[in-house]
Amino acid sequence: MDNFVFHNPTKIIFGRGTEAKVGAEAAAISKKVLLHYGSGSIKKSGLFDRVMASLKAAGVTVVELGGVAPNPRLSLVREGIKICREQKIGLILAVGGGSAIDSAKGIAVGAPYQGDVWDFYTGVAEPKEALPVATVLTIPAAGSEASNGSVVTKEEGQFKRPCNSALTYPRFSILNPELAFTLPKNQVANGIADIMAHLLERYFVNAKPVELTDRLIEATLRTVIDVAHRVLLKHDDYDAWAELMWSGTVAHNNLLDTGRSGDWASHDIEHELSGIYDVAHGAGLATVFPAWMKFVLKHDMARFVQFAVRVWGVDQSFFNPERTALEGIARLEAFWSSIGLAVRLPGIGIGSDRIDEMAAKCTKNGSSTVGNFLKLGKAEVAAILKLAL
Amino acid sequence: MDNFVFHNPTKIIFGRGTEAKVGAEAAAISKKVLLHYGSGSIKKSGLFDRVMASLKAAGVTVVELGGVAPNPRLSLVREGIKICREQKIGLILAVGGGSAIDSAKGIAVGAPYQGDVWDFYTGVAEPKEALPVATVLTIPAAGSEASNGSVVTKEEGQFKRPCNSALTYPRFSILNPELAFTLPKNQVANGIADIMAHLLERYFVNAKPVELTDRLIEATLRTVIDVAHRVLLKHDDYDAWAELMWSGTVAHNNLLDTGRSGDWASHDIEHELSGIYDVAHGAGLATVFPAWMKFVLKHDMARFVQFAVRVWGVDQSFFNPERTALEGIARLEAFWSSIGLAVRLPGIGIGSDRIDEMAAKCTKNGSSTVGNFLKLGKAEVAAILKLAL
Repeated sequence: MDNFVFHNPTKIIFGRGTEAKVGAEAAAISKKVLLHYGSGSIKKSGLFDRVMASLKAAGVTVVELGGVAPNPRLSLVREGIKICREQKIGLILAVGGGSAIDSAKGIAVGAPYQGDVWDFYTGVAEPKEALPVATVLTIPAAGSEASNGSVVTKEEGQFKRPCNSALTYPRFSILNPELAFTLPKNQVANGIADIMAHLLERYFVNAKPVELTDRLIEATLRTVIDVAHRVLLKHDDYDAWAELMWSGTVAHNNLLDTGRSGDWASHDIEHELSGIYDVAHGAGLATVFPAWMKFVLKHDMARFVQFAVRVWGVDQSFFNPERTALEGIARLEAFWSSIGLAVRLPGIGIGSDRIDEMAAKCTKNGSSTVGNFLKLGKAEVAAILKLAL
Repeated sequence: MDNFVFHNPTKIIFGRGTEAKVGAEAAAISKKVLLHYGSGSIKKSGLFDRVMASLKAAGVTVVELGGVAPNPRLSLVREGIKICREQKIGLILAVGGGSAIDSAKGIAVGAPYQGDVWDFYTGVAEPKEALPVATVLTIPAAGSEASNGSVVTKEEGQFKRPCNSALTYPRFSILNPELAFTLPKNQVANGIADIMAHLLERYFVNAKPVELTDRLIEATLRTVIDVAHRVLLKHDDYDAWAELMWSGTVAHNNLLDTGRSGDWASHDIEHELSGIYDVAHGAGLATVFPAWMKFVLKHDMARFVQFAVRVWGVDQSFFNPERTALEGIARLEAFWSSIGLAVRLPGIGIGSDRIDEMAAKCTKNGSSTVGNFLKLGKAEVAAILKLAL
């Protein structure tokens, strides 16, 4: 087990009706809040009014900034930074899914920084201070509600890049599974793929032994698999949504990579799909991950056998590990297909024409690698994308 | 799933050699530290000197208070409180196992309190403020290094009682598995029982459904079971110790009872054993828990079947759930026996003569109950203790 530091200070407030607590929690941090959200679905659902009422009752002054798009844009982050400086905002409250939260985190690190916030996403600089962020989560998927990560897209050049900083762990996150009842089915399926991908990135590692984290990841994967069809079949199945929402947080709050280093090649490759084609992150991951698995399989066959047996209950071929390993990957593909996800690039409208461009962008034109389980250069990334066709 | 709040702010610093970081971490909180420890084994092992050197290098002034006994005593807590007030201590650093940490937490809540610190253990008052606590852990067992709990024994009347307060989550905890290499085998076995008991208390609950937490608990139990013989067979098996130590923390940091209320009857009953007979907590739990399980089995047979199948791999009797459930309990007893623990009271030197007295103390002479899975009065507690004979 590798040495590690684990410190996740996010306060989780979980359950029915918990958005009513947002005012009191926010007011304890600041009385001047930037309320950051997306397309306005929170206005249709009534959530916006409930959040505003709670904030006002707690004496909080609210400045609004809506319009966050999926794959949140750098331009809106910059707009938020300007508002925070001008209005002396003390807390950024994201109400929505991963996009609103990631955008809020970008604003949070950018506001006190003299340079360009994009520096933090290219690795040119590291955040030294940040405004506090808090969230009311509406979509179980990105795990950003209790993570230190943010992913933002720069429109010029279609670059989608991550920034990780302990300063961006939300101060509190309110998770009411009821808020997810109205999500469209394709968005639910994308979220499930996103959650599972966070678990898989942490599962395929070289650190040995990592028994506890292996088993905790398997436990979370099995839970997600157990409830996935239930939330899709019955949109208001609270108990199933509660399992899924809490699994989404646990999958990405960094507990499940203690003592090991996750892979993250599939995420880096997917960022190029989203950056160029603006596909949903989860939808992209469902096409990249199986291809990545087939490509790296032989690097550690035993790990793929363990995945097949423990997560999918595959009846192990003791004398033919590769058969068992491949069956595990096939089960993952079958499961994702069963919830309506495409597991090949053409299924999300992507052909072979820009594969080389994506492989080049992903590896800084071949000068760097992605992934830790196996380090992948430009040629390997292109090969994986071809396997995904 | 029940509504819940989860907020564990303890920073975990895990791995080989990490005690060298204690000075810098402590100095960031206070330059005046009470160093609290037990019998002096940390002096023999050299840990004391390494911790002192790190603290001194960081410019920290140290006041020492050793002498913490297993089942830590109220009298020493009071002595610590006096020292903290007189010396204006800013941080209490416990170096040791659960006893040193629990004692430190008692001092932490008692120092700023005008009344008697025992009020917090009897429930007469709740802590409103506390000095910060930090730890260097030497024994994987109690989980106090990342919990909000403290258990202290009042010598007059032999009362062992818990105090839970969010103010007592340690600010940081340093976990170096190497520090456990020199533990005597019986203490290792007691620690394993303690860790497993923390998981079992959280497993037998009435909340439904609690799929994710069920599976996370099973994952942690299986890890502990996997590594237990390894640490006993080879005292310096770092990898096995690392799994056990991290499991001990995860078992008790409150992640594993999110969305549910643990039982805790076995802990309450065991506190009477420890209070009167001064047996080790883990040793007592190994005798109480199987008896408790047999007593409450029929309250939720399906849960005991799940425990047998998922944790112990029992080949399920689909047409005879009770047989499967009982086999699960038998496997637990066999496992504890295999690591040298007694699973009946006479094995730890306790007979039938004071059972009624313990049942009475445990339930305030029959006026209250213990446990949540099934609420148990004086007669039920006595019946469980008789089953443990």
